[in-house]
Amino acid sequence: MHEAYTLGSIAGRFGLELRGDASLGVDGVDTLAEAGPAHIAFLANPRYRAQLAVTGAAAVVLRAADADACPRACLIAPDPYVAFAKIATLFERRPAATPGVHPSAIVADGARVDAGASIGPYCIVEGGAVVEAGAVLGPHCVVGRDCHVGAHSRLVARVTLVQDVRLGKRVLVHPGAVLGADGFGLAFDRSASDHGGWIKVPQLGGVVVGDDCEIGANTTIDRGALGDTVLEEDVRLDNQIQVAHNVRIGAHSALAGCAAVAGSATIGRYCLIGGGAGILGHLSLADRVTVTAMSLVTHSIRESGEYSSGTPIQPNRQWRRNAARFKHLDEIARRVGAAPKEPES
Amino acid sequence: MHEAYTLGSIAGRFGLELRGDASLGVDGVDTLAEAGPAHIAFLANPRYRAQLAVTGAAAVVLRAADADACPRACLIAPDPYVAFAKIATLFERRPAATPGVHPSAIVADGARVDAGASIGPYCIVEGGAVVEAGAVLGPHCVVGRDCHVGAHSRLVARVTLVQDVRLGKRVLVHPGAVLGADGFGLAFDRSASDHGGWIKVPQLGGVVVGDDCEIGANTTIDRGALGDTVLEEDVRLDNQIQVAHNVRIGAHSALAGCAAVAGSATIGRYCLIGGGAGILGHLSLADRVTVTAMSLVTHSIRESGEYSSGTPIQPNRQWRRNAARFKHLDEIARRVGAAPKEPES
Amino acid sequence: MHEAYTLGSIAGRFGLELRGDASLGVDGVDTLAEAGPAHIAFLANPRYRAQLAVTGAAAVVLRAADADACPRACLIAPDPYVAFAKIATLFERRPAATPGVHPSAIVADGARVDAGASIGPYCIVEGGAVVEAGAVLGPHCVVGRDCHVGAHSRLVARVTLVQDVRLGKRVLVHPGAVLGADGFGLAFDRSASDHGGWIKVPQLGGVVVGDDCEIGANTTIDRGALGDTVLEEDVRLDNQIQVAHNVRIGAHSALAGCAAVAGSATIGRYCLIGGGAGILGHLSLADRVTVTAMSLVTHSIRESGEYSSGTPIQPNRQWRRNAARFKHLDEIARRVGAAPKEPES
Repeated sequence: MHEAYTLGSIAGRFGLELRGDASLGVDGVDTLAEAGPAHIAFLANPRYRAQLAVTGAAAVVLRAADADACPRACLIAPDPYVAFAKIATLFERRPAATPGVHPSAIVADGARVDAGASIGPYCIVEGGAVVEAGAVLGPHCVVGRDCHVGAHSRLVARVTLVQDVRLGKRVLVHPGAVLGADGFGLAFDRSASDHGGWIKVPQLGGVVVGDDCEIGANTTIDRGALGDTVLEEDVRLDNQIQVAHNVRIGAHSALAGCAAVAGSATIGRYCLIGGGAGILGHLSLADRVTVTAMSLVTHSIRESGEYSSGTPIQPNRQWRRNAARFKHLDEIARRVGAAPKEPES
Repeated sequence: MHEAYTLGSIAGRFGLELRGDASLGVDGVDTLAEAGPAHIAFLANPRYRAQLAVTGAAAVVLRAADADACPRACLIAPDPYVAFAKIATLFERRPAATPGVHPSAIVADGARVDAGASIGPYCIVEGGAVVEAGAVLGPHCVVGRDCHVGAHSRLVARVTLVQDVRLGKRVLVHPGAVLGADGFGLAFDRSASDHGGWIKVPQLGGVVVGDDCEIGANTTIDRGALGDTVLEEDVRLDNQIQVAHNVRIGAHSALAGCAAVAGSATIGRYCLIGGGAGILGHLSLADRVTVTAMSLVTHSIRESGEYSSGTPIQPNRQWRRNAARFKHLDEIARRVGAAPKEPES
Repeated sequence: MHEAYTLGSIAGRFGLELRGDASLGVDGVDTLAEAGPAHIAFLANPRYRAQLAVTGAAAVVLRAADADACPRACLIAPDPYVAFAKIATLFERRPAATPGVHPSAIVADGARVDAGASIGPYCIVEGGAVVEAGAVLGPHCVVGRDCHVGAHSRLVARVTLVQDVRLGKRVLVHPGAVLGADGFGLAFDRSASDHGGWIKVPQLGGVVVGDDCEIGANTTIDRGALGDTVLEEDVRLDNQIQVAHNVRIGAHSALAGCAAVAGSATIGRYCLIGGGAGILGHLSLADRVTVTAMSLVTHSIRESGEYSSGTPIQPNRQWRRNAARFKHLDEIARRVGAAPKEPES
C-alpha cells in the first residue's frame, strides 16, 4: 500500500541517529501500543515510557536518554514529536491532484488560474480571482470576486472565500470554512421603525491570511469593516472558530476548537488560545499569552503568561450550594472585613 | 395531504390501549394546546395536565393515571412521549428518494454504489467509496476516498465525508456536517522560523460511526491522528458539536448543541452532555455521566452522576461586585480560617 | 473604481448639514486614521476625537458639538454612525445579480421562481418552493421542499434551506447557514436495546424568518418539532449561532457570534445576547434584556436590564487558588454566619 522505506533511509532523510538495523523496512507509523513490526512509533511524553518494553514497533523515535530502555531499533531525536511528525508525512495518502480545471468547474472570464493549479468538480472561481501554481481546490469550493489563492495552498472541499480574501502560500483550509463573509456591523437607528431598528453597516474590507496558516472545518473569518481582518503567517485555527471583523492574530499563534475572537481584537505572536475561549472586542493580547479552555478575556493582557476564568467542575449537588453562595460573595467578603474591591467591568 | 389513519389502526400498530371511538380518523399530530379535531396530542409532562380539559385533539396519548381527566379519546401508553414519537413518524413528509444516481452526480470509477442507493444532484463519490443499499445522499454531498455509507443511512444535504469515514446503518447526518477532516495535530519545532514555528502532524486515522447515530447540522468530527475517532451505536449529536481526533463516545450518549470534546477524550455509555459544555483532552467519563450546559470538565469522572461548573446568572451590577470578590476568594477563605486547599489544576 | 460623489450630493441625499466645499469629490470611506483626501470618515466614539486634528479625510461625519474641532469638511448628523453606515452603502461593490436561472441550476417542476429573481450556479430549488422577485441565490444554495424566499432576500452562497423554511423580504443569509434541519428531539425508550436507547421524535414544524433579518455564516436554525421556530422582523444573528427548535426571537434583537438558544426558549424584542452566551430551553426573556458574553441563562428573566454570569479572567496561578476555594464556598459562607441560601437550580 504505502511505499516502503528502510530505517537507514529515514534516518538519513531527517538527520536522525539510528541505533539498529539500517536495512529494516517500514511501511507506516503508529502508537507504541498499536505499532506492528513494520511500523515506526515514538516516545515523547514520559508517561508512556513503560510501553517501550512491550511495543511491537520496528523502531521508536525517542530522546537519547530513553534509548537504553528501548528493546527495538531507535531513531534518536532532540524533539521526538517533531521528528515523528516529519516521518509520518511519508505515509500520508493524500490524493494526488492533477493540474487543470475540472470540466464541471465554472471559471469566470476575468479570473486567472495558473496552469499548474488544480480546480476540482463544481468549483466556482469568480471574476478578478487568482489561483496560483500548485494550488488545489477540492470539490465544491467557491473562490469569490477578487480573491487570491497563493501557491500550493489547498482548499480541501466545500470552502467558501466570499470576496476580497487573500491567502498566502501553503495555506490549508478544511471543509465548510467561510472566509470573507460580512462582519457583524450594525448601527441602531432610533428613527427607524416604531422604537428604532438596525441598519447594516457595509463591510468593505477583506481578509488576509499569511503563509502556512491552517484553518479548520466550519471555521468563519469575517472580512473587515474598513481595512482587513489579518492572520499573520503560521497561524493555526482548529474547527468552528469564529474570527470577527478586523481581528489581527499574530504569527505562530494557535487557537483550539470553538474559540471566538470579537471584532478588532488583536492577539499577539505565539499565543495559545484554549478550546471554547472567548476574547472580547477591541482588546489586545501580548505575545506568548496562553488562555485556558472556555475562559473569557474581558480586558487587554499586557504580559505573557497563562490566564484563566471559570469555576471547577463538581458534583451538581455540591456545585449548586456553592453557586448559590456566589450570588452573595460580596456580602461574605464584607463580613470577613475584606477591603472593598473595584467592581469587575 | 397525509394519509388518514383511524384511532383503532394506530392503537393496533403500536400496541396501545384505546379508550374511545376506534373508527375516528386522524391526519396529524400537534400539542395539546394547538391540536384540532383530526389530530393526536400527548401528555408526558404533568405541567401540561390542565390542558387536557380544553384540548381540541381527537385523542391524547397519555398514562393510564391521566385517562380519567381526559375528555377525549385516550391512547394509553406506559411512556407517552415514546409512543407519541412513534405515532408522529406516520405523518412525516420525508421526500421519497428514488434509487439511482442523479445525472449531475460524479461517481468515481473505483467507487461502489448499490443499485438501491440514491445519489442526489451534484454529489461526488470518490474512489474506494462504498454506498450501501437504501442509503440516500441529498444534494451537494461529498463522499471522499475510501468512505463507507452504510445501508439506509441518510446524508440530508451538503454533508462532507472527507476520507476514511465509515458510517454504520441508519445513520442520519444533517447539512453542513464535516466528518473526517484533519485533527488539530501540531508539533512546535523550535528550530523552525526565528523563534520556532508549527509543524503539522499528519492525521492518518479515520472516523467510525456506529449504527443509528444522528449527527447535527454543521457538526464536525475529525479523523484520528493514529487510529480512529469512534462513535458507538445510537450516539446522538446536536448541531455545531466539535469532536476532536481520537475521541470515543459510548453507545446511547447524547450531546446537546455546541458541546465540544477535545482530543483522545473518552465518554462512556448513556452520558448526557449539555449544550456548550466542554471536555478537555485525554479525559475519561464513566457511563451515565451528565454534564450540565456550558460546564467545563477538567478532570476524568469515575462515577456516574450529574456534574456542573460555572456561576449563576445575576443582574450585571450585582454580578460585578461578586465577580470582583472571586479574584480574592483564597484570601477570604484564609481569613475565615478555612483549611488550605489543593489548587485547582 | 467607485462612482464619485460630491460632498454636496451626499449631504443632500442623506439630509445632513454640510460645512465645507460642496463640490469636493469623494470615492470611498475609511477610518479617521486611514482615510485619504477622497474619503469620508466618521467620529462616533469620543475616544477617537483626538484623531480629528490629523485625519487626512476629505470630510468627517460627526455631531454638531464636534464640528469646531474638525479641520476638514463636516457632515453633521445627530447619530454619526448611522449616517456613516448609510453613506458607506454608496461604496459597496456588491456583485450585480442578473435576473434569471443559471443553466447549471436545477429547479424542480413544482417550484416557482419569479422572473426577476436570480438563481446562481449549482443551486437547487425543490418542489413546492417559491423564490420571489429580486431575490438572489448565490452559488451552491439549496432551497428545499416548500421553502419560500421573499422578495429581495439574498442567500450569499452555499446556504441550505432544508424544508418548510419561510424567509420574509430583504433577508440576508451568509454562507454555510443551515435553516430547517431537524430539531434535536429524542425520546428515551427503556424497552429498546439492552438498557434502552433513543427514539427520534419526528420534527414536523418549519422556520419562519421575518423581514430584514440577517443570518450569519455557519449559523443553524432548526425547524420546529410541532409548530415553527420564529425570528420576528429585523433580528440579527452573527456567525455560528445555534437556534434550536421552537425558539422565538423578538423583533430587533441581536445575537453575537456563537450564542446558542435551546429549544422552546422565547427571547423578547430589542434584546442583546453577547457572544457565546447560552439560554436554556423553555425560558422566557423579557424585552430589552442584555446578556453579556459567555453568560448562561438558567432561569427566565422578567425585567429588562443587563445580566451576567462567570468569573473574571486572572493569571492562572491566582485563578487556581481561588477556583479551589469555590468548591467550598458554601462552607466558607457558613463560617461567616451568612444565612442559608436556596441552592441554585
